[in-house]
Amino acid sequence: MRVLGVDPGLTRCGLGVVDGGKGRSVSCVAVGVARSPQEDELASRLMAVSTEVERWLDVHQPQVVAIERVFSQHNVRTVMGTAQVSGVVALAAARRGLPVAFHTPSEVKAAISGSGRADKKQVTTMITKILGLAEAPKPADAADALALAVCHLWRAPMMDRLAQAEARAAELARNHRAKLKAARERSAQQKSAGPKAAPETGGKTR
Amino acid sequence: MRVLGVDPGLTRCGLGVVDGGKGRSVSCVAVGVARSPQEDELASRLMAVSTEVERWLDVHQPQVVAIERVFSQHNVRTVMGTAQVSGVVALAAARRGLPVAFHTPSEVKAAISGSGRADKKQVTTMITKILGLAEAPKPADAADALALAVCHLWRAPMMDRLAQAEARAAELARNHRAKLKAARERSAQQKSAGPKAAPETGGKTR
Repeated sequence: MRVLGVDPGLTRCGLGVVDGGKGRSVSCVAVGVARSPQEDELASRLMAVSTEVERWLDVHQPQVVAIERVFSQHNVRTVMGTAQVSGVVALAAARRGLPVAFHTPSEVKAAISGSGRADKKQVTTMITKILGLAEAPKPADAADALALAVCHLWRAPMMDRLAQAEARAAELARNHRAKLKAARERSAQQKSAGPKAAPETGGKTR
Repeated sequence: MRVLGVDPGLTRCGLGVVDGGKGRSVSCVAVGVARSPQEDELASRLMAVSTEVERWLDVHQPQVVAIERVFSQHNVRTVMGTAQVSGVVALAAARRGLPVAFHTPSEVKAAISGSGRADKKQVTTMITKILGLAEAPKPADAADALALAVCHLWRAPMMDRLAQAEARAAELARNHRAKLKAARERSAQQKSAGPKAAPETGGKTR
């Protein structure tokens, strides 16, 4: 499966394409960043990043797009731009019928380094090793995008299993509720039928 | 000038088209909401809202798109979706070469009601009166979108004047700095020329 990982940003939007093979084998297809000039207006910056992302979708034909989930605990202005970029990237993927997955920074760190608290440097070092790259991808946003793609490839089978298990559990719960409801209805019918029938049959038997 | 006002949101995205005439005269062209099902995935919800906004752009052909500026002081999850919608709307406008303006909720309230602290109800009442509508637009998101469009029409001339004044001030400052720099350079030349020239001419005159 081929995944495009996206570390959303207006100034630098990290992009990384990774192929996943058997088990945990992964290989880097392409890595880079989409940029937009800081002095431009927001709408044209979003367009510049979106156009570059669409070019990557056309050139590399990924089957899934994995985007970093944005949180608002950081700088408010930056976060809004980041959220807007993640929106236009998700839209570009959806328009091509591609599934979009979101992973949080700590999910990515945990998947790549085994710890949700790893710092940027550790993630870069690990992703360089995992993908067997000759040198560390630069800037950090590009490395993060590769980490996102690998995180998706490694988490996706687990998430699928989880989704299947949840669906099974939900079905069992539905069946159980249906049986309970049927039992309640039967007992209610017997009750409502009971008092009416009682005098009749009672009359006969007595 | 025709403005499309957008109150961004995933569940309900308010849309209002307003024509501005001479002075402060304004008239309502269309009002409504773009919706997306809450149970759908984020990417497909963004696509649903974006597609509807693009339909409005095609049908009503506005010259400007005015979007409510999103702040992150509210519910984090909602805000992220709202920011993502504002991103895809800005992108749709930019793709059509339309200018995009952002106004904060308090700018809209101040423009419409004279107070930045007016509540939703007051804004709806005022916009209904301003546009001479038979009844209040519903839901509130639709009324907010109209208010945004009117806010833009009323603020735009002022913002243009402000931008011109700022550009003029910046030019004056630039000229002033250039003159200062030239004066400093002249004085530096005179100083560096001074000591060298002094002995020569000094030798001759003495």
